[in-house]
Amino acid sequence: MLNSATIRNHVNIVGQSSNTAPVLIMAHGFGSDQTAWRYLIEAFAPKYRIVLFDHVGSGKSDFNAYSPHRYKSLHSFTHDFLEICHELNLQQVTLIAHSVSCMVGLLAASLEPNRFKQLFFISASPCYLNDRDYIGGFEQADLDRIYAAMSSNYYAWASGFAPLVMGNADHPELAVEFAKSLLAMRPDISQAIARIIFQSDHRADLHKLATPTTIIQPKHDVAVPVAVGQYLAKHIPHSNLILTDTDGHLPHLSSPDIVISAIANYLQPLMLE
Amino acid sequence: MLNSATIRNHVNIVGQSSNTAPVLIMAHGFGSDQTAWRYLIEAFAPKYRIVLFDHVGSGKSDFNAYSPHRYKSLHSFTHDFLEICHELNLQQVTLIAHSVSCMVGLLAASLEPNRFKQLFFISASPCYLNDRDYIGGFEQADLDRIYAAMSSNYYAWASGFAPLVMGNADHPELAVEFAKSLLAMRPDISQAIARIIFQSDHRADLHKLATPTTIIQPKHDVAVPVAVGQYLAKHIPHSNLILTDTDGHLPHLSSPDIVISAIANYLQPLMLE
Repeated sequence: MLNSATIRNHVNIVGQSSNTAPVLIMAHGFGSDQTAWRYLIEAFAPKYRIVLFDHVGSGKSDFNAYSPHRYKSLHSFTHDFLEICHELNLQQVTLIAHSVSCMVGLLAASLEPNRFKQLFFISASPCYLNDRDYIGGFEQADLDRIYAAMSSNYYAWASGFAPLVMGNADHPELAVEFAKSLLAMRPDISQAIARIIFQSDHRADLHKLATPTTIIQPKHDVAVPVAVGQYLAKHIPHSNLILTDTDGHLPHLSSPDIVISAIANYLQPLMLE
Repeated sequence: MLNSATIRNHVNIVGQSSNTAPVLIMAHGFGSDQTAWRYLIEAFAPKYRIVLFDHVGSGKSDFNAYSPHRYKSLHSFTHDFLEICHELNLQQVTLIAHSVSCMVGLLAASLEPNRFKQLFFISASPCYLNDRDYIGGFEQADLDRIYAAMSSNYYAWASGFAPLVMGNADHPELAVEFAKSLLAMRPDISQAIARIIFQSDHRADLHKLATPTTIIQPKHDVAVPVAVGQYLAKHIPHSNLILTDTDGHLPHLSSPDIVISAIANYLQPLMLE
């Protein structure tokens, strides 16, 4: 018997279960999983029905659902994400997305605009490669070095990548946590997904998004330069940019209070209908 | 981070995902799991959103969620079942229940009558013990022998219990399947749950059910005498009884066509609202 998306993506539903509680989906980024949302869950569970999941290849998702054939671009993850929304019949969705999940959310909300009410992007990037005037932050040679390191010794690579991406050197436990979730991935899947993400370019899709979007851009993020947040704000029609005084690519883990108040300030009022 | 009911009970959502598709929940019986519904899924998936789950202790449920302290009566399973309904925000639910799940459904629909539209009970029993005029089918000594056999050699017990309960001796593969799912349970959990079920008496709860209920009673069922189906029909206010020409306690596996047409004949019209 085929498994549904709820099982494939280890869907977890927490918070309010009342009929009228508005829906928040939290979508994790690369190398992370749904446990990264614990501080935001605590903050928003009293008023929201919160839907959590792990992307295929991450956390407790069904690794058997992964195949290099099926997962070739962010469109595959978008398809999975929308399947979850369909199965759970989610309407008027507010999405809080981190990193790669931001472009997944952008594609999903462009495909099904009526399903989404509001988006929050944390450390989002539509394109990691520099391209003429566009500063993505990486040259192809940088990325090739990452792929080579991932395939030669995944463990060593993760141990070095985690503190770099997490920042916050004064709190080494944060990088340890991120390294652990990176190491929980199957190395071949992790490498394939890293390649899909880093080689993606969704700049041409930004203008298609009609959903109100708040971009939360850390001041210091090795994976996403501030110029990227500004680029997103310029090209996503109904967007606003919040530059947060945070360090590292996972501010929802390293500076949860700042991220929570940024979101709380911009969350649209509950259930106007 | 706590797991939600969707994970604890390995919730699987199949069939139609449209906003307007009506909801069918299928709830398996003791020693079985959600895979027992495969024929009914095939029949009803084209028009319904079907929600499947495994009770704690069965199938792919989270066995760590089991504790003898928490699971002391059918009320615990009722609580789990309602949690699934809440998390998925299910409304206007039609429940197809087998064996122990029938009384679980009865308790759930009595607690939250507005959530349920219609119930189908397959091989239901409110009380397995004979009691004066009431013919449940078992004496306490019979049950004590079952418990003793379960604890002395679970494997041997399951191999004997499965063909007895399944009936249909001309199709031994059916009993083999049932034995397999019995053997997939942890023996201590299986024995504790068997005891909860066999010692339960919900006769006094039957009159509280206000939801229309169709009782599907096999003509030959070693676990549920025909008199039990008649008793249910007499004491559940809005009920009708269908005596099916089927053998064994799991007619949805052994005679799926008969069960499917019994249900199809009595399913209330789709979405009148």
